[in-house]
This record gives sequence, structure tokens and C-alpha cells, in this order.
Amino acid sequence: MAGEQREPGQLRLAPESFLAPDLVNDIHRNGVDDSRRKLLRGAFAAASAALVAPSLRAADDPDIVSVPEWSRSLGKPVAANPYGLPSPYESNIVRRQSPGLTQTDQASVAFTPLQNLFGMITPSGLHFERHHQGWVDIDPRRHRLMINGLVETPLVFTMEDLLRLPSVSRIHFLECGANTALEWGNVAVPTVQYSHGMLSASEFTGVPVSLLLERAGYDRKRARYLLAEGADGSSMTRTINLENALDDAMVAYGQNGEMLRPENGYPLRLVVPGVQGVSWVKWLRRLEVGDQPWAAKDEASHYVDLMPDGTHRQYTSIQEAKSVITAPSGGQKLLKQGYYCITGLAWSGRGSVSKVEVSIDGGRNWLVARLEGPVLPKALTRFNFDWTWGGEEALLQSRVTDTSGYTQPTRAQLVAVRGTRSIYHNNAIQTWCVGADGEVHNVQLG
Amino acid sequence: MAGEQREPGQLRLAPESFLAPDLVNDIHRNGVDDSRRKLLRGAFAAASAALVAPSLRAADDPDIVSVPEWSRSLGKPVAANPYGLPSPYESNIVRRQSPGLTQTDQASVAFTPLQNLFGMITPSGLHFERHHQGWVDIDPRRHRLMINGLVETPLVFTMEDLLRLPSVSRIHFLECGANTALEWGNVAVPTVQYSHGMLSASEFTGVPVSLLLERAGYDRKRARYLLAEGADGSSMTRTINLENALDDAMVAYGQNGEMLRPENGYPLRLVVPGVQGVSWVKWLRRLEVGDQPWAAKDEASHYVDLMPDGTHRQYTSIQEAKSVITAPSGGQKLLKQGYYCITGLAWSGRGSVSKVEVSIDGGRNWLVARLEGPVLPKALTRFNFDWTWGGEEALLQSRVTDTSGYTQPTRAQLVAVRGTRSIYHNNAIQTWCVGADGEVHNVQLG
Repeated sequence: MAGEQREPGQLRLAPESFLAPDLVNDIHRNGVDDSRRKLLRGAFAAASAALVAPSLRAADDPDIVSVPEWSRSLGKPVAANPYGLPSPYESNIVRRQSPGLTQTDQASVAFTPLQNLFGMITPSGLHFERHHQGWVDIDPRRHRLMINGLVETPLVFTMEDLLRLPSVSRIHFLECGANTALEWGNVAVPTVQYSHGMLSASEFTGVPVSLLLERAGYDRKRARYLLAEGADGSSMTRTINLENALDDAMVAYGQNGEMLRPENGYPLRLVVPGVQGVSWVKWLRRLEVGDQPWAAKDEASHYVDLMPDGTHRQYTSIQEAKSVITAPSGGQKLLKQGYYCITGLAWSGRGSVSKVEVSIDGGRNWLVARLEGPVLPKALTRFNFDWTWGGEEALLQSRVTDTSGYTQPTRAQLVAVRGTRSIYHNNAIQTWCVGADGEVHNVQLG
Repeated sequence: MAGEQREPGQLRLAPESFLAPDLVNDIHRNGVDDSRRKLLRGAFAAASAALVAPSLRAADDPDIVSVPEWSRSLGKPVAANPYGLPSPYESNIVRRQSPGLTQTDQASVAFTPLQNLFGMITPSGLHFERHHQGWVDIDPRRHRLMINGLVETPLVFTMEDLLRLPSVSRIHFLECGANTALEWGNVAVPTVQYSHGMLSASEFTGVPVSLLLERAGYDRKRARYLLAEGADGSSMTRTINLENALDDAMVAYGQNGEMLRPENGYPLRLVVPGVQGVSWVKWLRRLEVGDQPWAAKDEASHYVDLMPDGTHRQYTSIQEAKSVITAPSGGQKLLKQGYYCITGLAWSGRGSVSKVEVSIDGGRNWLVARLEGPVLPKALTRFNFDWTWGGEEALLQSRVTDTSGYTQPTRAQLVAVRGTRSIYHNNAIQTWCVGADGEVHNVQLG
């Protein structure tokens, strides 16, 4: 912990990350005496009571007096790491599995550490994982994509073929339909990594599905659906609405500037912007054109929503507008009163974020948050909100309104329509309770 | 090579990358007989003579007949890699040092493999490196940022302090002032990685410099410059115009969603959008406010431009508009005639890209390329251009016009003003010559 580091002779390279989930703890364990506070000034001075900004303090801080070793030595050469990696001080910022969530680790989830991330792009190494029969290292030279079904000419493409075709690049979010699943019941998981971490965003590059379908000569009168099929052991299959496929779907090989990562479908995955993640079939090997849904396993027995009257919603696809505060969030602790920058993410499968509001009193009052640009359709939008904590209990919430005019519902509003027996498609407003002791907990209101 | 992979029993996991610089070779070695060409259709059919899109060909392709092992087995569990890495088939996509470019590997360059990248974001692991005394692993708990000079109150911030302050996130390019340096003379380096690979782009997150200066109470009457100083062994110092600093500069800790990589300044670097890379001081430890430039080593003896009359340009900062075709590019080969998607990058330190034009005849005729969105200020913009190669010699060029109305100069236009004795700030139009044999070479026109 940072506070411990200040003791001379006790500096150690802790295996835990500098920016671990207890970031706020770390910040506040760097205590600062009151006399230093008067040095703060500027627009945020009034809100900065807890901020550490002392004047030069050579006398009492050995770290400043002694010139650190990295300022007195020859560093490492260029290309020491031909492919670079994060600092060893960040080794705790990783994807995490939720033990016991599923029966096998090959059909499980590893969550993105949203509480530690910035901006709108998810580093590919931290993109969440959700597999149905594990992930595989496919040899791209042996991989094929078939286009068949209601087409004039079935086609098979090699990866080389696809890389030669006209491509598009776009930034989009990818959210599993089961994200925030446990919140349907009375299980409030402790951290935002586990409650909302089946969410990532990347710049994807690939070939528009429309181009491939046109090349195969799809039957414009009969075609209404696509079946997408993966090459992993589960042969994951999903029905895609042709409307979505022709709009902005792509057969993607690129992610954040380089080839897809194996866990995310290398060498090829379907990208269906705005649609739930299960339809973004990884290790994509086939697109079949048809005139009716296929009722595949993962759209008949899974990814359906059980409604209060016993019926179920099937073939849902679009991820509705949703937002979440990523810091401060569950598991963190505010150790001092003062200024905090509340930060989080907002997104919508139906368009762009038009507004994010933040409440610190459980939804009684709302104020508009700042949005970091560019605000893109079907992408993550980072929001920030200035807050001064006075030591009182606070109920932190965010809610998004998208360009369709839809506003994210409260949990009570969602439950009134959907009941509590669903697993999927929970886009309710999330509440983090800051206790008078500064501890942040996941709570369910209403 | 991909063509070799078709022999049964000879499948091997080649150590070289699937998407190596000879991508175009690989594509074309997948020969296809004429009878299959008739299967092609759609908007690009006329331009697709070389494209491999056969119908089902089970009889002659063992890769398709036999179900690959990854479709018949249980894959790897989630979180097998808590921090994910590229596919082993991409192990050749790396930063590369140019041997002999500098006397020591700690004061050298490792170039970004632009020929292999997609979109507008550079993966952090492939961000180019340029160090002056090697790179270092700084312990963030011992790192400090001082604000001093013409300020009311000198301040020292810990990393925890900075992480508590209001932040912004923006996508910007970063180009070394010496990028494309060798092209000033008669040295046409063979590949775009070495000619233009001191160029990368990331989403940066950090605290606006303006906020820090206001907090320290900078002298609004006298302040005209900032000195930025790094904590590595070289104590890199650069003078920054206050105007740039107050406009959109930030003290950044985040890059592409996570903390900066050590080679890129972890835990803190200066981001000065549009300004040459040397001013984006890494391992930033100090910002001093002053009323005149400091004439530091790296702005007096380096990063100056020797003009034809023997004088030199000093304190240049803004990177002028520039573009380059990244594929096909030097070292690649077109083995067959037919459709190619010419792709590349364009950027400007003075604003946004408003237009990119491509010529295939050395600049006699120009056609407008497609821009991939979002087109952002002081960021990279990906362009694509459809081309059918008929086997003739071709001179591929791109030129950008930015929102200031400035158009990238030809080499002759640049040399007429600047001579050929510069090292820095070469933004001339790049020419790739496609020979009748399909080989692509770097050539200098005019």
C-alpha cells in the first residue's frame, strides 16, 4: 500500500497493482496534514480538501530527497520488449473469473476490470471473455469462411481473401446479454468488475457483411435471417436479423489496430454493433442465409428472458441504453472527505449517448455529467462528474438517455415489467452506497 | 507461406507471422485457377481477378475435408491469460530497431509496424519507442510531479493526487520530429515501418495542464513558456509554448484505457497534441513556468533544421499535415493483377484531415480516398482506396489536405524550401513504386 511506502527502508515492489480496486484506499492512505491544504487553489480548491498537494517537503520525505535510481542510470534499450507489456506495478489489473459461476472453466466468464480503466477503449489484453467450450488458437492459414444458404453462389473465403477486400474500421462496445445478471435477484456482487465487467469496447476492422452477401448473390426476396457459426468445439450458432447484418455488421479480423486476440475470436469474428455479445460469433466459419430463425441451442434454451407470466422473450438482440459508475464503486473506500471525480461509462445499442445524469442521493436529484468525446454510436462514452463528499451516506447512481429518447430505467421500473426471474438483459440503474465510514457497497433500491 | 500450407501433411506452425510484411505475397501465393473466377460477383467482381473465392472444394482441399482439431476439442479456460496477448501466429508483428541508426541501443528507435496495422488506434504494445537514455520502470508511489517557476505556489503532486483530479480522455497521434528523416537524402529505406514508423496514436487520459497551472497560480503577465523535464537518466528537457500547453495539453497517465506503458513514460508523460514527439516528455517529473525558451540540449543541438543558407530553424513544434500509404508499401509484392484496397494513414498537427487523395501515376492524376471515421483533430485518420492493378508499373502516392487548408507538399516542393540537409520535419508525399514484376519499392521523385 502506498502509505506504507513512505517509511524509509521499507520500499518494496508490491505484487499488487498500484491501481488495484482499492485505488481510493491507496489515495487516502497517503495522508496529508491539514497545514498543506491551504496550498490548494484554483477552480477546484473548494472541493479539494482531501487532495495531496504539498509544497516541497524535502525534509520529511526521503523519496524526494534521494534522486531515484532510474534518474541516475542507463535504462533499458529500445525493443527490449518487441511487443510491449504493462508495468510490473500494474500486474494486478487483470481479467478475473468469478469462481463457481459455471460448472466448467471453459464455459465461463472472465470479467474486465472496469474500476481500473480510463477512456472509451478497452485494452485488448483486458477484453472480457465468455466462451462456450473454451478458446482456441486457430491457424489462420487453415481457417475458412463459408457463405451459403439462400444465395446464388455459395462461397468459401480464406483469410487472405478477406484481407484483400474493402474494409471498414469502427469503434463499438461489446456487452454480453448476461452482463449484470446476478442483480436480477438479491445477489449484489461486490465490485463493478463482477457486476458490469462483461463489457468492453474496441476499434474493429473488417469486411462489411453486406459486401459478402452481395457477392454471394443472396436472395433479396426470401432472405430474412443469417445464421452465424463458430469454429470452436461448441460450434456456437446464432440467428442474426438480416436488417442488422446489412446495416453495420462486419466480419472482423482487426481489433484495436492489430489482429483479433485468440480469446476474442482470432482470426475472424462477427461484429454486430448494438447487439448482445453472444451474436458476435467468434472464430466465425460460416454465414448461412435463411428465411426463418434457426432456434439454435443458444437462442432456445439460453439467452431468453423468463417473464413474470411464465412466457419468455426470445430472439432479443439489441442491448438497451445503460450506464454505470466505475469509480468510486463497490469494494473501494473513501478515507477522507473532499473532492472526487465520479467517473463511469454509458452506452446504447440503439444509437449514441445524448445525456448522462448523476445522482448522489439515490435518484431524488440529478445533475448532468461531462461526456468525453468523441461520442460515437454503439460505442462506450466516458462521463465524469465533480463531487465533494462531506462524510454523509451517499447513494451514487448514473442514468443515460440515448438518441432514441430512451432513458435507462430504475431497478423498480425494470422489475415491474420483467419480474426478477430473468438472467439476461438487465440495464437497470446501478446504485453504489457510500457509507459514513467511506466504504462503498453495491445496494439494490426498490 | 500460405501456399505451402495446402500440401497435406505439411501443415506447420511457422514462426513468422501470418500478417508479415510480405502479406501481399502470401495472398497471391494462394493461387486460384481461372475457372473459379466466374464465381465472383457483386460490386467488386470486375476488380477481383486475383481474389480467391472458390465454391466448396472438398475433393481437393484437405483443410476443408478434415475438421480441424480446434473444432473437435475442449479449448482453454477463461482467464488462462489474465492479461491477454496476440496469437502466436502474429509473433512477427513487432517493433523493430534499425540497426546502426544510433551509437547506443538506449538512445535509439524501435519502429511501429505500420504495414500490419488497421484503423486509427495503435496497440500500446506496438507503440514506437524513442529514448534518450533508455527506458525505466518507475515505482509510481515514489514518483512526483513538481510545478514551479513563475507561479505563486510551487506544488508537488503524487500520482495519487493526479488520479484524483478531473481528467480528460482524447485520441491523438504522436509522431517523432525525426520520422521519415532518412528520406531527406538519397537513402530510401525499404519499408514503411522504417520510413514512417515513428508514428503511433492512442487514447490518452490525464489532467489538463491548464488546471495544474491555475492551481499553482501561474503568472499570467510574464508566463510564456513551460519547461517539461523527465525523470529518466537523460533528464530530457523541452520548452513548450504556453499557448499549446493551455490549449489541449495534458499530464497523462492513461493510454488506450489502461496506465501508460513503461516505454511510453509510465507513470506520467506530457501530451502536447499536434506537437512533435520529443516534447511529449516521458516519465514527467517537472513543469517549470518561464518567460523565455530554455535552449535545452535537445532544442539547441538536436531537433533543429539546417536550411539551405546555413541558418537553422529552431523551436519548431507543430507537425505539419502528412500522409502515407501503408499497404501496398515497400518490401511487399503484388503477385497477380486485380483488385487491391490501397490503405494508409493521414494526420495533421494543425487540425483535422479534410481530404486524402491517392495517385497511382506519381501525382499526375488524383482521386479522393474514403476516410474511416471518426475523423478527429490531431489524430490519425485511416483512408482506403479501391484500385485494380493491370500489371503496369505504378507510382502510388497519397496527399492530405487539413482543415487549415494546407496540402502536403511533394518532395520537390519541400526540398525547394528546406534543402536536403535537414534531419527533422519531413512531411513530403511518399512514393511507392510498383514494378511490372509486382515488387514494391521506395522511390524518390523530383
